[in-house]
Amino acid sequence: MTGGLGFIGSNLAIRLTDEGAHVVVIDPCVAGCGGNPFNLAAVRDRVRVVPESIADRAAVAEAVRECDLVFNLAGEISHIHSMLLPDRDLEINTLAQLKFLETCVDVRPGIRIIYAGTRQVYGVPEYLPVDEKHPVNPVDFNGVHKYAATMYHLMLSRMGRLDSCVIRLTNVYGPRMALDIPCQGFLSTFLRKSLNGEPLEVFGDGLQLRDPLFVDDAVEAMMRMGEARVLASRSYNVGGPEVLTLATIATLTGLRAGAPPPVFRPFPDERRKIDIGSYHSDWSLIQKELGWRPFVRFEDGIARTIQYYREHRAQYLDPSRPDPPCKLDHGRRRNA
Amino acid sequence: MTGGLGFIGSNLAIRLTDEGAHVVVIDPCVAGCGGNPFNLAAVRDRVRVVPESIADRAAVAEAVRECDLVFNLAGEISHIHSMLLPDRDLEINTLAQLKFLETCVDVRPGIRIIYAGTRQVYGVPEYLPVDEKHPVNPVDFNGVHKYAATMYHLMLSRMGRLDSCVIRLTNVYGPRMALDIPCQGFLSTFLRKSLNGEPLEVFGDGLQLRDPLFVDDAVEAMMRMGEARVLASRSYNVGGPEVLTLATIATLTGLRAGAPPPVFRPFPDERRKIDIGSYHSDWSLIQKELGWRPFVRFEDGIARTIQYYREHRAQYLDPSRPDPPCKLDHGRRRNA
Repeated sequence: MTGGLGFIGSNLAIRLTDEGAHVVVIDPCVAGCGGNPFNLAAVRDRVRVVPESIADRAAVAEAVRECDLVFNLAGEISHIHSMLLPDRDLEINTLAQLKFLETCVDVRPGIRIIYAGTRQVYGVPEYLPVDEKHPVNPVDFNGVHKYAATMYHLMLSRMGRLDSCVIRLTNVYGPRMALDIPCQGFLSTFLRKSLNGEPLEVFGDGLQLRDPLFVDDAVEAMMRMGEARVLASRSYNVGGPEVLTLATIATLTGLRAGAPPPVFRPFPDERRKIDIGSYHSDWSLIQKELGWRPFVRFEDGIARTIQYYREHRAQYLDPSRPDPPCKLDHGRRRNA
Repeated sequence: MTGGLGFIGSNLAIRLTDEGAHVVVIDPCVAGCGGNPFNLAAVRDRVRVVPESIADRAAVAEAVRECDLVFNLAGEISHIHSMLLPDRDLEINTLAQLKFLETCVDVRPGIRIIYAGTRQVYGVPEYLPVDEKHPVNPVDFNGVHKYAATMYHLMLSRMGRLDSCVIRLTNVYGPRMALDIPCQGFLSTFLRKSLNGEPLEVFGDGLQLRDPLFVDDAVEAMMRMGEARVLASRSYNVGGPEVLTLATIATLTGLRAGAPPPVFRPFPDERRKIDIGSYHSDWSLIQKELGWRPFVRFEDGIARTIQYYREHRAQYLDPSRPDPPCKLDHGRRRNA
């Protein structure tokens, strides 16, 4: 698995390990990408972590040789970072993926790879809910580069060199999400502020729709994709069981964390440019083909999430630090 | 203009110059990309050629500062090269475009850029004729990387940082096409062999459909896109006035050149993987919005093309050389 020290990757690694799988994680903990060695604390003795880049041919070859299935979750996830340093985003999200897939094709031709894509590639929805046939119109470099990597996977699969498919995730939340790196999604910001007892800020009127997806449901979708008999270059949209306004999401999060009620603010300029308005997913294709559906309602999921961070606060939030500025330290790695 | 020493770029530069425009061409003649200094021989004294990469910020800034309109035609065009060296293709077709556009945004924010995209991004057509709403399913790295560059243009335009739009070209032919580099499109191969008096080889049954577009018609489409009042991130498909089988195209080309009749051969494996079957464009959108349509029938266009190469054979074909092998010399540049 790549990106296995990150939010979704670590939850998936724990689930796989609990089910008896032998898990190898490749993750160099690139600064700003959400990796956190503590995420795998619960399975530390049972998961092998290779602290190298997915572009490192030797490390990847050695790890992939012993695997039958790859979950590919490595990547920079910040849309705002990608606008500040598009070259860096291209390197992490496209070039590194190209090198990774070349190694996989050479070492384990035809291996199944489940790639964690993003609904960001759709851009401003032309219709709701958004299905897999929606046109691709990314609104930021992150979306362009993730989509290039998506095309690599699907193309190599159509050519028979890999057996890969793509899950397009949207607004996943839950335990092990990075809260201490800036410019991630709004759910990370909502959680950080709520846990610090600050009122949440909602940009605009708060009526934008989202369908937050609890991480356990996302993990279940990926498990089913890993086990499916035939995938044939499929892309699957997934989303949560409820469609909620940002105002509702903020209110429920703050309420559960005991924070003051949310305040509404005009959109900052740099965020308005990459905002996509309302979004929710049509996940009927994966429901029909793999029998998946989301179960965890936001009220339950956010309660479990806040409970996790209350227990492990020090690993995710440094209370002495103010809200982090939107900066990148290009070369820095967290200690893996 | 970028890629102005190439096939379509040089034809466009000549047309622009003939209409009185001041043309600056940025083109380092990257090996294998079709640039040929002779292409601009007719306007050599009236066009300024900057022999630098489009990724060179200083050179681009200086050139773009004096322009009101950019035609962006730089790129590696070989689908087969892209499968042999995908990193190189990413560097030329995506990274260099990213750097180029960053410079344009900084130096001339909001400038109009017409980007030469490709129908290759559509992959195997799901329906015919292919319109702009057709799903994007590239079958090779070249298609992935050109589509990433396409997304850069459209995204930056939607954000108001550029005023760019995309023309998706298909099977353009005519004077100044490179004939001496291997692994280009079939029209280049057909012309090279015909001019050498060899029989053309058609892979498969020859019933695949194409709509060859004469370069003057392609240039006219780009001229109209340059002059249009509002483009709003449009993509336009263009194609020729007739839909012909490969067998017909081969027969007409050989006949006109006085070569023996075509022979039919089974598909070589490496080509079958990236073959897209039949393709022809639905160009009704650009017809409706910009009044463009193609005029030059294949029989006339191929006659004009063969006439050009008969007059300038030495600049395009070295008769002593056998059919070139499919190899790349990564660092080599032609002398610009």
